[in-house]
Amino acid sequence: MGSVKDSQMDEFDLFSPTDFRYYEKDLKEYLTEEAFTHYKVKVEVALVKTLAEYGICPKDIVKVVDLAIDKISSKEVYKEEKRIKHDIRALINVMKKYVGAEAKPYIHTTATSFDVIDTARALMYRDATSEVVLPNMIDLEKTWIELAGREKDTIQIGRTHGQHAEPITFGFAIAQYIERWGNRILKVKESAENLVGKFSGAVGAYNASSLLIENPEEFEEKLLAKLGLKPGRISTQIVPPEPTVDFIHSIVSSFGVIANYADDMRHLQRTEISEVGEPFGKEQVGSSTMPQKRNPINFENVKSAWKEFMPRMITTYMDQISEHQRDLTNSLSQRYIPELLVMFSSSVKRINSISKRLKVDKRNMKRNFKLNADKIVAEPLQILLSFYGHPNAHEKVRQLTIKSYETGKPLTEIIFEDKEIEPYSNKFTEDQLGIISNPEKYQGIASQKAEKNCDYWKKRINDLGVQNG
Amino acid sequence: MGSVKDSQMDEFDLFSPTDFRYYEKDLKEYLTEEAFTHYKVKVEVALVKTLAEYGICPKDIVKVVDLAIDKISSKEVYKEEKRIKHDIRALINVMKKYVGAEAKPYIHTTATSFDVIDTARALMYRDATSEVVLPNMIDLEKTWIELAGREKDTIQIGRTHGQHAEPITFGFAIAQYIERWGNRILKVKESAENLVGKFSGAVGAYNASSLLIENPEEFEEKLLAKLGLKPGRISTQIVPPEPTVDFIHSIVSSFGVIANYADDMRHLQRTEISEVGEPFGKEQVGSSTMPQKRNPINFENVKSAWKEFMPRMITTYMDQISEHQRDLTNSLSQRYIPELLVMFSSSVKRINSISKRLKVDKRNMKRNFKLNADKIVAEPLQILLSFYGHPNAHEKVRQLTIKSYETGKPLTEIIFEDKEIEPYSNKFTEDQLGIISNPEKYQGIASQKAEKNCDYWKKRINDLGVQNG
Amino acid sequence: MGSVKDSQMDEFDLFSPTDFRYYEKDLKEYLTEEAFTHYKVKVEVALVKTLAEYGICPKDIVKVVDLAIDKISSKEVYKEEKRIKHDIRALINVMKKYVGAEAKPYIHTTATSFDVIDTARALMYRDATSEVVLPNMIDLEKTWIELAGREKDTIQIGRTHGQHAEPITFGFAIAQYIERWGNRILKVKESAENLVGKFSGAVGAYNASSLLIENPEEFEEKLLAKLGLKPGRISTQIVPPEPTVDFIHSIVSSFGVIANYADDMRHLQRTEISEVGEPFGKEQVGSSTMPQKRNPINFENVKSAWKEFMPRMITTYMDQISEHQRDLTNSLSQRYIPELLVMFSSSVKRINSISKRLKVDKRNMKRNFKLNADKIVAEPLQILLSFYGHPNAHEKVRQLTIKSYETGKPLTEIIFEDKEIEPYSNKFTEDQLGIISNPEKYQGIASQKAEKNCDYWKKRINDLGVQNG
Amino acid sequence: MGSVKDSQMDEFDLFSPTDFRYYEKDLKEYLTEEAFTHYKVKVEVALVKTLAEYGICPKDIVKVVDLAIDKISSKEVYKEEKRIKHDIRALINVMKKYVGAEAKPYIHTTATSFDVIDTARALMYRDATSEVVLPNMIDLEKTWIELAGREKDTIQIGRTHGQHAEPITFGFAIAQYIERWGNRILKVKESAENLVGKFSGAVGAYNASSLLIENPEEFEEKLLAKLGLKPGRISTQIVPPEPTVDFIHSIVSSFGVIANYADDMRHLQRTEISEVGEPFGKEQVGSSTMPQKRNPINFENVKSAWKEFMPRMITTYMDQISEHQRDLTNSLSQRYIPELLVMFSSSVKRINSISKRLKVDKRNMKRNFKLNADKIVAEPLQILLSFYGHPNAHEKVRQLTIKSYETGKPLTEIIFEDKEIEPYSNKFTEDQLGIISNPEKYQGIASQKAEKNCDYWKKRINDLGVQNG
Repeated sequence: MGSVKDSQMDEFDLFSPTDFRYYEKDLKEYLTEEAFTHYKVKVEVALVKTLAEYGICPKDIVKVVDLAIDKISSKEVYKEEKRIKHDIRALINVMKKYVGAEAKPYIHTTATSFDVIDTARALMYRDATSEVVLPNMIDLEKTWIELAGREKDTIQIGRTHGQHAEPITFGFAIAQYIERWGNRILKVKESAENLVGKFSGAVGAYNASSLLIENPEEFEEKLLAKLGLKPGRISTQIVPPEPTVDFIHSIVSSFGVIANYADDMRHLQRTEISEVGEPFGKEQVGSSTMPQKRNPINFENVKSAWKEFMPRMITTYMDQISEHQRDLTNSLSQRYIPELLVMFSSSVKRINSISKRLKVDKRNMKRNFKLNADKIVAEPLQILLSFYGHPNAHEKVRQLTIKSYETGKPLTEIIFEDKEIEPYSNKFTEDQLGIISNPEKYQGIASQKAEKNCDYWKKRINDLGVQNG
Repeated sequence: MGSVKDSQMDEFDLFSPTDFRYYEKDLKEYLTEEAFTHYKVKVEVALVKTLAEYGICPKDIVKVVDLAIDKISSKEVYKEEKRIKHDIRALINVMKKYVGAEAKPYIHTTATSFDVIDTARALMYRDATSEVVLPNMIDLEKTWIELAGREKDTIQIGRTHGQHAEPITFGFAIAQYIERWGNRILKVKESAENLVGKFSGAVGAYNASSLLIENPEEFEEKLLAKLGLKPGRISTQIVPPEPTVDFIHSIVSSFGVIANYADDMRHLQRTEISEVGEPFGKEQVGSSTMPQKRNPINFENVKSAWKEFMPRMITTYMDQISEHQRDLTNSLSQRYIPELLVMFSSSVKRINSISKRLKVDKRNMKRNFKLNADKIVAEPLQILLSFYGHPNAHEKVRQLTIKSYETGKPLTEIIFEDKEIEPYSNKFTEDQLGIISNPEKYQGIASQKAEKNCDYWKKRINDLGVQNG
Repeated sequence: MGSVKDSQMDEFDLFSPTDFRYYEKDLKEYLTEEAFTHYKVKVEVALVKTLAEYGICPKDIVKVVDLAIDKISSKEVYKEEKRIKHDIRALINVMKKYVGAEAKPYIHTTATSFDVIDTARALMYRDATSEVVLPNMIDLEKTWIELAGREKDTIQIGRTHGQHAEPITFGFAIAQYIERWGNRILKVKESAENLVGKFSGAVGAYNASSLLIENPEEFEEKLLAKLGLKPGRISTQIVPPEPTVDFIHSIVSSFGVIANYADDMRHLQRTEISEVGEPFGKEQVGSSTMPQKRNPINFENVKSAWKEFMPRMITTYMDQISEHQRDLTNSLSQRYIPELLVMFSSSVKRINSISKRLKVDKRNMKRNFKLNADKIVAEPLQILLSFYGHPNAHEKVRQLTIKSYETGKPLTEIIFEDKEIEPYSNKFTEDQLGIISNPEKYQGIASQKAEKNCDYWKKRINDLGVQNG
Repeated sequence: MGSVKDSQMDEFDLFSPTDFRYYEKDLKEYLTEEAFTHYKVKVEVALVKTLAEYGICPKDIVKVVDLAIDKISSKEVYKEEKRIKHDIRALINVMKKYVGAEAKPYIHTTATSFDVIDTARALMYRDATSEVVLPNMIDLEKTWIELAGREKDTIQIGRTHGQHAEPITFGFAIAQYIERWGNRILKVKESAENLVGKFSGAVGAYNASSLLIENPEEFEEKLLAKLGLKPGRISTQIVPPEPTVDFIHSIVSSFGVIANYADDMRHLQRTEISEVGEPFGKEQVGSSTMPQKRNPINFENVKSAWKEFMPRMITTYMDQISEHQRDLTNSLSQRYIPELLVMFSSSVKRINSISKRLKVDKRNMKRNFKLNADKIVAEPLQILLSFYGHPNAHEKVRQLTIKSYETGKPLTEIIFEDKEIEPYSNKFTEDQLGIISNPEKYQGIASQKAEKNCDYWKKRINDLGVQNG
C-alpha cells in the first residue's frame, strides 16, 4: 500500500488517465476501491447470516451487523491496513468497531481472506457487467441494427486488400458487426454468469469450516446463494482461475470487434474516400493549426484503447499460474481488472454515440463505386463463361481485363466485341446480361442478408431480457 | 512463397524446432501443408458435388473429380504457385490437369479462394481436435483421476505463498487440476465444434453464387453439410474471426493449466522438498557434468512451451481486425496456427507420460508436513476460541504463536498451559481437542472432495463419447 | 475526455490502483496530468522566447508570458477542452487569458499540437528518470553491493533446475543481480538521454515555421536547446517512435531483473528452504486466519507488478505504427506511459526497502548445503579423473553415484574404496584431494568474483554522477 | 525430443511455414539445427585448443579434434540423444567416437552444457546478423535512399488522421523510413556485437575450471577470444539474459519499422488513392475470381509476419526470469529464436524487392493533392495573420473555412474578399502571398530535408563497413 494522501485529492494529481480523463460514473458503484470495500462487507455479512442460520452465532446478531455495513469506508480500512499491513484483517477490525461485543467473535469466522476477496470480485464483475457493460453493448447493437436497416440498400463497393472488389451495400457491411457483436454479447453474458465464488478456506479443503459445520460444502453453497453466486466445484485458497480468464477473454475479444469497426470507419473517412464522417460539434476544433480538418478522433481513441488494453490478456494468462494452493503474485495484477472493464465500457459508449450520429455520404459511396465499376463484371463474366462451357474462363477474362487496362476501353464494351465470347454470351439469360452490362446489379443478396441479420439479432437481443443502459 | 528446395530435405536443415525436434506424427494428416492441400481439394470436391446436385454441372463429372483427389500433391501445387503467384489458382490449375475437359469449367465455379481456405482450415482444426488433441487431453484427465484416487488420503502440507499453511492431501491437490482440465476439455470441444465455414464469395454477399443459384444460402449450407460444417450466419470474404479466436483461447488457456501443473511439480521436486520426481530412464544423463542430478526437464519443457506459445494469442487478437471486406494481413500469421496445436498436443502427451509414472514420495510429504505442523493448530484454535466466545481470538493466538517462536516451546503445549484459554478449551468437543493436539487431523474434507471430483469427471468425460487417444 | 467530476474527489472513488494504492509522491511533479500541463506550458514559453530571439515577436512579451505559467491549471484547461474538444487549443486559449493583448497572437505561433506534446513528454520522461527513477535504481544497486559484500563468503548451494548443483556463496548470487542491474541502469540512462523533441510542424516539413523563419531547423534546435533537448533528425507530425520504444524497453527489461530477484527470494523463503526472509513488522498480520505465517508479500507484489506492466510493451510496439504523417491511434495509449514509470519506480523502492533489511539465515544455508553435499564431488571427481587420463570418467562417476543412491553409502567413501579409481586418485594434489573429501571447498572463485563485481559497479555507479534518491 | 523420422522428409510434411514456405537459404549455415550442431562443435574445439595452450592436454591432440569436426552431424547426435536423453552429452559421445583414445578424456573437460550452448548461440546470432541480416537491412536502406532521392521533389499531400493536412514530397515521406531504419541498423549491429559467451561452469563460479587452472577467468577470456567473443562479466549456468533481450528487442523494433512502411504503402495503394503500386508479374494472378485486382500482397505479408513475430518479445521477457543459478524453462523457447531472425530477414528482403520496383504514380499524387488543396492555406493564413497582429487568427480562419464549406466558394477566394483580413494581408511579402494563392508552394523544406537525410545515412551506412547482402 503506497499512498497516504489526504483522502481528498485533486483529480489532476493522478497518474492514471482512467481516472482523470476517462472516468465512468456509471461504474463507480461497482468497480472503484470503495465499491470493492462494500462488496467485501456484503460478503462478510452473508457469512454472519449463514452462521446464524446454522446456529453457530445468535440470530439477533445479524441485524446489528447489517446496520454496520454503511459505516465502513475504504478510508478507515486503509488507515488500519497501514498499521497492521493486512487488508482483510484491517477490514475485520473496522467492522468489529461497529458491532457489539457479542457479535465481534463471529465476524469472518471460518473464512480466509480470499474467500471474501474472490467472492467479492466475482460479484463486482458480474454486477458491473449485468448493470452497465451489457446494457451498453446492447445499446450499441441496437444502434447498428438501426443503421444497417436504414442503409441496407445503399450501394457500396466491397473492398478486399483495400482494393475495389465487388458490390455490397453499406447495411450489409454493418450487418457483419451486428453478427460479431451479438455473438460477443452472448459470450460476455455467459462468461459473467459463470463467475464463481468460494468459501472453502485457506487451502480449499474446508479445514476451518468443517471444524464447526457437518456439511461445509452445503454451508458454502447456501452462503453464496445469498449473493446469487455458485461456488467453484473445487478450489484452493482462490477460485479456479479459468472462469475469470474466460470472462476477460470475452471482454478483450469484444474490444477487438469495435477496434475493427473503428479502423473501417477511419479508413472510410479518409479524404479520398469520404464515405462516412464522425459527427462534429459546432465549437469543436479539428486541429490546433489546420482548422479545416475533420479528424476521426473518436474512432482513433477506441483503436488506441484497444492497443492499451488488449495486451493485458497476457497478464491474465500469467495469472492462471499460481503455485500450489496459491501464491500471491496475482494480487496486484488483479487489482487492474476493473480498469479494463471501465475502459471497455467507455469505448463501447463512445462507438455508440458516434454511430448514432454517423454521417453516411451516399453520394460519395456511389462516386467511389463507379471509379472501377467497369472491371467488376470480370467475375460474373468468368463464372457465366465457365457455366456455359468455356474451357478456361478465368484466363480468358484475365486477358480481356489486361486489354482493357492497356487500351483504356471499358471491359463492358470489349466483352461484347470479342468473337470467342460471343457463342457463350448468346446463352446468357436477361438477368445475367443485365449484370454484365450494369455492375451495380451484381450485389448478390447483400440487402436481404443485412435485413435478415438485423431481424435475427433484434429478436435475440430482446430475448436476453437485459435492461437498457 | 520462399522456398524452392528439392522436395526432399534433411530434417536438420530446418529452422523450426517444431519440425526437427518436436514433430508429432499423430497430427501429420491434419495439420501439415500436405494435409492442408488435401483439405482444400476435399472442399473443392464438395463444391462440384453440390453443383451437380443443383444441376449446374453434369452428375457424372463428380466421379472423375473424386478420383483426381489423390493425385494432387503440395509439391505440384507449389510449383504452379511459383509460376503464377496465387495459391488457390495454382491448386485449381493442378486439379484441372487431372480431370477431363467437361469437368474443367466447374472446378471452383462460384467460389472465391477464401471460401475454400477458411472452410478447409475449420476442417483441419476440427479434425485435429476431435481425433488427436481431445483424446490426448482426455487421456491426461484419466491419468490424473487415477493419480488423485490413489493419493486421496496421502497427507501433504498445503502451501500458500510457498509457506506451509494447512493440511491437504496430495490427491486433493491433483483434484484441482482434474477440475480445471475437465473444464478446459469442455471448452476446447465446444469451441472446435463452433468453428464455421463459408461459401459466400469474394465479399460475402453471394455475388457469384447468386448468378447461378436461386437460394445461395441454402447452397452454402448443403455444401458445408457434406463436410460436417455449418456456415457463419454472415461473412465477408472470410469467416467471422471470433469462432477461431475463441478456439485458440480455449487452447491457450488449457496450456496455462498444464504450465501451472508443471510449475507445481518442479517446485515439489526441489531438492529440499522432494515430494515428487519425474521418472528417470536407466541410460538417462542428468547433467553433462553433474551425474547426480535428477532434473525436472519434462516439466521445464512444458513450461517453456507455454512461454513460447501463449503470447501468440496476441497475434490472434490482432488478426481479429481485418479492414472492410478483409485485408490479407492475417494470411501469413494464420499459417502458424497448426504449430500451436501441435506443440500443445505434444505438451499434453508429455505431461501425461510423466504423470503416469510420477514418483510420489509419501515419506517426504510426511516429513515436510511435520516441519511446521505445530503451528498449524493456530487456525483451528483461533476459530474454536471465537466460536466459544473469546472476544479477540485472532490477536490472542498471534501472541501465543510469537511466544512459541521466541521460546521454542511447541504451540500445542503452550495452548494447554495458558490460563486465559482454559475456560474456552474446556468446552471443546473430543474431535476438536483431537485436532488441536494433532494437526494432521486438521485436513477438512480434502480426501472426500478429491474422491467426489474424480467421480464427477470420470462420468462427465465418459459422457463426451470421445475416442481414446 | 470522460470525467467532469468535481475537481476534488475521494481517492477511493478511483478505478486505478496506481493512484489509490500505489501512489508515488516523488513522481507527482513529473508524471501527473497536472505535471503534463506544466510541461506543455514550459514548451510554449520556450517557443515564445525563441520567437522573440528571432525578432518575430517583441522581446518584452517574454516576461509577461513567463509570469502566466503559474496560473495555468489542468482544471481550467480541461474545462475549456470540454467546450471545444481539442486539448492543445484549450491550453492555448487558457494561456491567452493570462497574457496581454500584444502577446496573444504569438502563443503557439508556427507550432502544431504535437510539437508541444511530444516535446513535453520527452521532458517528463527524462526528468522523472534522472530525478527519481535512476536515483532509485542506483540506491538499490548500492544496497545490493553492500549485501553482496557482506555475504560474499556465506556458503550456499547453487541450484539449477531447482536441484542442488554446486557450491556458491550468497554474495556471489547477489552479484549476478548487481551486474544485470548495473547494466540496466546504463541502458535506462542512455535511452532517457536519447529521447528527442520536435518543432517541425503538422507534417514535419517545417511548413509553418519556414513561413516566417529562414532556417527553421536551426530555430527548432535553439528552441529545444532551451529545454535541454535535441530534435529528431527528421520527424512527421510526431517524433520518430523508436527512441521512446527503446526507452520503454529499457524500463520493461529492468523490471524483469527485479522480478527475477523477487522470484529467487520467494523460493529461498519457502518453509523448507528458509534461507532468507522478508523483514516483518511487529504489528503486521501474516494471514487473516493463519497467524503463524511469514509470507513474502513484497516479493510477490513486485512479481505481480511485472506481470501487469511487462505486457504493455506490446502496446508500445503497436504504437510504432502510425499511418503516413501520423494517425492518432497512439494518443490514448501513450497517456498510460507515466503509469509504467510510476509502478516501476515503486517496485524498485519496494525491493530496495526489503533488500536493505533482508534476513539472511546462514545456518539454514549451511543446513541445506549439507543435505546433498556428498554428491557434489561427482563433478570434480569426474574432471580430475579425465585430467589424469581416465578414458570414460563421466560414465564411471555416474555409475558410482547410482551405487551411492542404491546403497546409501556416501559417495565420498565409495570413491576411495573403488579399485578402478585408485590409480588416478593417487595422482591428485593435496588441494584436489581436499575438495574430493570436503565439497564445501568446491566453490571455485565465487567469493572473489562477488567482490570484484561489487568493486566494478561501485566505481561505475559513482562515475555516473547521478544524485542519490 | 519428439521426432524420429527418417532423416529425409518431404518438405510439405512439415507443420511450420517457416520451413516449407518461407525458407531462407542464406541463413541455413547459421541458424538451422545442423548449424547449431556445428557451432557447438566449434566451441568444444576451442575448448580443447585452450586446454592445450594451458598444458592440460597434449598439443598434438588439437589437430585430431580439428579433423573430427566435419564428421559430426545432427543426425548422429540426435540418435545418441534419443538413447541417453541429454543433448550435450550426446554430442560429446559422438565427438569422442571420432577422436583417438588419448583425446577422448579432454573433450568437454571443465565445461558445463550451457558453456557450450550459450556460447554457440551467441556465435550463431552474431554471424547470422553480420553476414546476412545486417547486409539485407543495409540493402534496403540503400534502396530507400535511392527512392527518396528520386522522389524528393514529387509533391504529395501529407496526411494526418488519414486526412489531408499539408504538402510534403514523397521523397520526404520515404526519408522518415531512412532515418528510422538507419537508426535500427545501428541498434541491431550494436546489440549483436554485445552478445556474450561464457565458460564459467555449472553455476557460474568456475568451480570446475578452477580445479585445474589458476586463473579461470583468463582461461575463459582466451577461449572465447578464439571465437571472437567476450565473456559476460559474471554469469550463472547461463549468460546474463539482458544482452540477448536487447538483441531481440533490436530485431522486433526493426520489424515494426517495415510493418509501418507496409501499412503506409498498402493504404497508398488503395483504389481511391493509387499513389503507389506493388510491381506485378506478367503471369501473376490477382485474385482467383476477380482477375482485375492488383493486391498489395507483399506488403500484407510483411504486416502479417510482424503480427506473428512481434508478440514473441513476451517470451523473451519471460525468459529473463530463471530461478537461482538457472532453471531450464527457457530451453525450448530459446530454440525458436532463430526462426525470428529468419522471418525478419525474409521480410526485409521482400520489402527491399518491392521497394526497388515500386510504382510511384506522380499523376495520382498530384490529383489527390488537388482534391482539398484549397483548404490547405488555412494554416499559413492563420500564422501570417497572427504574425501581422490579428488577435484571434485561429478562430477567424476556422470561421472562413466553415464559410467555404457551406458556400462551396474556394477559401483562396474568400480570403481576399474578407474586409477584416485585408489590413493584415496587405502586409504579406510576395512569397507569403504566393503561398496563400498556391498551396503547392506550402511545402516547407520537405525536399531539402529528404536530401539531407539521404546524404547523412549514405555516409553513415558506408562508414559501417558491412558487406553488401
